[in-house]
This record gives sequence, structure tokens and C-alpha cells, in this order.
Amino acid sequence: VYLVGAGPGDPELMTVRGATLLARADVVIYDRLIAHSLLDLAPPSAERIDVGKRPGRPTRQSEINALLVEHGGLGHEVVRLKGGDPFLFGRGGEEAEALRAAGIPYEVVPGVTSAFAAPAAAGIPVTHRGLAADFAVVSGHRDPERAEAGWNWAELAVGPATLVLLMGMDNLAEITAELIRHGRPADTPAAVIQSATLPGQRVLRAPLGGLAARSGAAGLTAPAVVVIGAVAALGAEPVPS
Amino acid sequence: VYLVGAGPGDPELMTVRGATLLARADVVIYDRLIAHSLLDLAPPSAERIDVGKRPGRPTRQSEINALLVEHGGLGHEVVRLKGGDPFLFGRGGEEAEALRAAGIPYEVVPGVTSAFAAPAAAGIPVTHRGLAADFAVVSGHRDPERAEAGWNWAELAVGPATLVLLMGMDNLAEITAELIRHGRPADTPAAVIQSATLPGQRVLRAPLGGLAARSGAAGLTAPAVVVIGAVAALGAEPVPS
Repeated sequence: VYLVGAGPGDPELMTVRGATLLARADVVIYDRLIAHSLLDLAPPSAERIDVGKRPGRPTRQSEINALLVEHGGLGHEVVRLKGGDPFLFGRGGEEAEALRAAGIPYEVVPGVTSAFAAPAAAGIPVTHRGLAADFAVVSGHRDPERAEAGWNWAELAVGPATLVLLMGMDNLAEITAELIRHGRPADTPAAVIQSATLPGQRVLRAPLGGLAARSGAAGLTAPAVVVIGAVAALGAEPVPS
Repeated sequence: VYLVGAGPGDPELMTVRGATLLARADVVIYDRLIAHSLLDLAPPSAERIDVGKRPGRPTRQSEINALLVEHGGLGHEVVRLKGGDPFLFGRGGEEAEALRAAGIPYEVVPGVTSAFAAPAAAGIPVTHRGLAADFAVVSGHRDPERAEAGWNWAELAVGPATLVLLMGMDNLAEITAELIRHGRPADTPAAVIQSATLPGQRVLRAPLGGLAARSGAAGLTAPAVVVIGAVAALGAEPVPS
């Protein structure tokens, strides 16, 4: 079983290794948001199983783990295709644990994460000399399956120079307000990148204090990546080709 | 000019897009540590320029920027091949700024960063349900060209659940001691992954308090990635294929 990162959206941003494995897969078990052109890399005879967690038709993580163990146990070449990087908020760690517990050989093939690729697609480096020597990546999504401790606002507000927020659109107003309340200046540059690296990519830049309202007014929705910090002011003027 | 991430080491972990661009490059300007098999993807006629910052024969960043502007200005298809991801401690932001200032069209092609790929290659997810909901990536390298403010030990010690340290081997004893002094328990799981994803990969796991001494005793050296946090205890027993 190969736990493969599909990258941030653009099918060409998958790794060569991932593409090679797809081309010989017996079974592809994939998430929502995976580009169809990636699925086309698999042989026509390959079984394709959509386990995207759609509203109203959820596949629980335990069922996905069971599918991987079942097909892996049959000796199939299984590609578990996950958006971004499998080990970054991708629950790939849980899938790896399930496979290890079942004694099924597996390999993790990392992918390009949207945590950096989305900012890069907007011209924003998450680190930059003189502006940001460190950064943190946080998930803005609260897992409904369990009570989480929540975010450490005090730490995030005054901590790393750059904050990258994944899955943060649903709670953007609360998150930006809490960051400001705990000391991140309201005029901190920030940006929302929607559908990064895809043809429909949209970028909105606004100070932290106005980010949620302006994103709402512009109709920006998930999937989107939020960048907060001085680097978000960089790369504003692309050079026309 | 294409600022292309070469990935963490294994040439197959470059993106399909990066490989496509290399195959039609007129000029490849590359860093030290780039796999030779990647350079072989470029046409035989392509000019290959090594700007690796070797001890005793440094190429200054300003010279690299000038090379990019020069070749880009001549209308060449230039691939600037950088280890990992170009915008993550890769100074790609500075190269992009130089190109933008010179009015030369450029594109950033993100890469798989060793910040996640190295832990993944050791079976370690940087986030994991119940263990780590956030993480920070910091550079352990102090830039000799300028006085930096240094690290915020208090924040790093008690902040994000997982810390990933890049370029940290030279200062590992100091960094681990400071983290412990500021409140990260000495028995926090930690790992060093050397030459991640390459045939010579080595992994050492030790509690934070003993990490530097044991790494030294084992002869682990750069390039290496250090992971600190509960997740570093995961994936210790690979399943034999």
C-alpha cells in the first residue's frame, strides 16, 4: 500500500514517484478534491474507490483504514491518493498505523503541501530574510469526532513570524479576532489563496483585521489557505509573461 | 526563469512539472546536494552552472541573483534548481524579488520539502490525531552574513506540539539544551534523520536530553532533519516488505 501525496491541486505538482505508482496501481483509493486527470494516470482496469468525506455521505476514517487493510491484504498494489502531503493534517499517520498493526507493507510518498504551494502560487514565501525566519502551520478545522483542546491563541498570536492556516475558512472571523485580541496587530498583512495552483485560483490580500469581512464579501470559500505575517505583503505584483 | 524545488533528495520526489521544465531547459543553475540524475534530465546541450555554497568557494546570493537576471534577460529558459522547496528557507523569495525588479518573467514550482519528507521517510507524521495538532519549522542555521535576532526559545520550547529543525546539526547541543531550559521536557521523543529519502538514509531516535550526544556518537552530520515532539516516537517499527 502506497500512501501518496497528490500535491496542492495542479496535477503536474504530483511527484514523479507518485505518478509512476499510479500508472501500475490495481486499486486507487482517493479523496475528494483529487484532480480527475490524476486518476486517469491509473490503468483503465484499476478499481477506483472514492472515499471523499462529502457532506451527507461520509466515509469514516476507520472504514478507510479497513479498505486499505483489505485490499493490501489481498496483495493488490494499492495507491491511497491524498490531497497535499499524506502526513500533514492528512491522517496518513493513522492509516500507516492501521497497516502496520495488520502487518501489511506500506510506503509513504510525500507530496507538495498546499501550506507552502498556495502561498508560493501567490508569490508569497513563508520564510524570507529579514521578514520571517520561522513559521507555524495550524489547522483551522475542529474535528467533530472528538473534543480538541482548541488553539493556543496566545502562542499563535505572538509566536512564529508567519502563520499558515489550513482549513480555516469556516472559522476565519473567530480566528482572526482571537489573534488580534492576543496581540497580533490588526494591520498585519494577510492573504487568502483559494483553489491554489488551479485555473480558478483567487488571491485576496487584506490586513488581518479586515480579512474575514473582505473574504466573505469576495465570496472566497474552501478550499483555501490563509497566510498571516509580513511575508503576505510580498509578491503582490506578478510580472506579466 | 523557473524557480524549481528539487525535493528532499530522492530524484523521484521531484514534481512532474519540475521534470518537464528541466527536460527543455537552456540553462540549469543548481545548488549543492542536487542529485546528478536530476541534472541528467536536462538536454545534453544545456548549460549547467553549479552555485552550491561550498566551504572555501562560496557563491554569494547577490551573484546568484545576477546570474538569474542575466540568463533570463537573454531569453533563455532557465531552471533554478533548489533543494527542497524554493520558498522554504531556500531564499527563493530573494531570487523572485530580483527577477521582479528586473522585469523578468518567472514562475515558482514548489517542491516536496524535507521538513515533512524526512520525518515521513522515518515513519513520523508531523501532525497526528491526539498527539500533535500543530507544528513549527525553524532553521537551526545562523546566517553569517547578518546579525539575526536569534531564536525565541521560550516560544519554541512550550509552543507547537512538533518542532522540525532544518540545518540544525551544527548547533544541536545548544538548541536542545535551550529548549529543555525553557520548559520542553528532557524526555520528549526526538529523532534525527540524515540523508532522508536517499539510499544512505540513517535515523536515530533519542529523548531530547540525549539527542545531541547520541547523534555525535553515531557520527550523524548534515544534511539532517531533527524532529522533536511526541510524534517522533511513532513509526519506530517498519514492516518488512
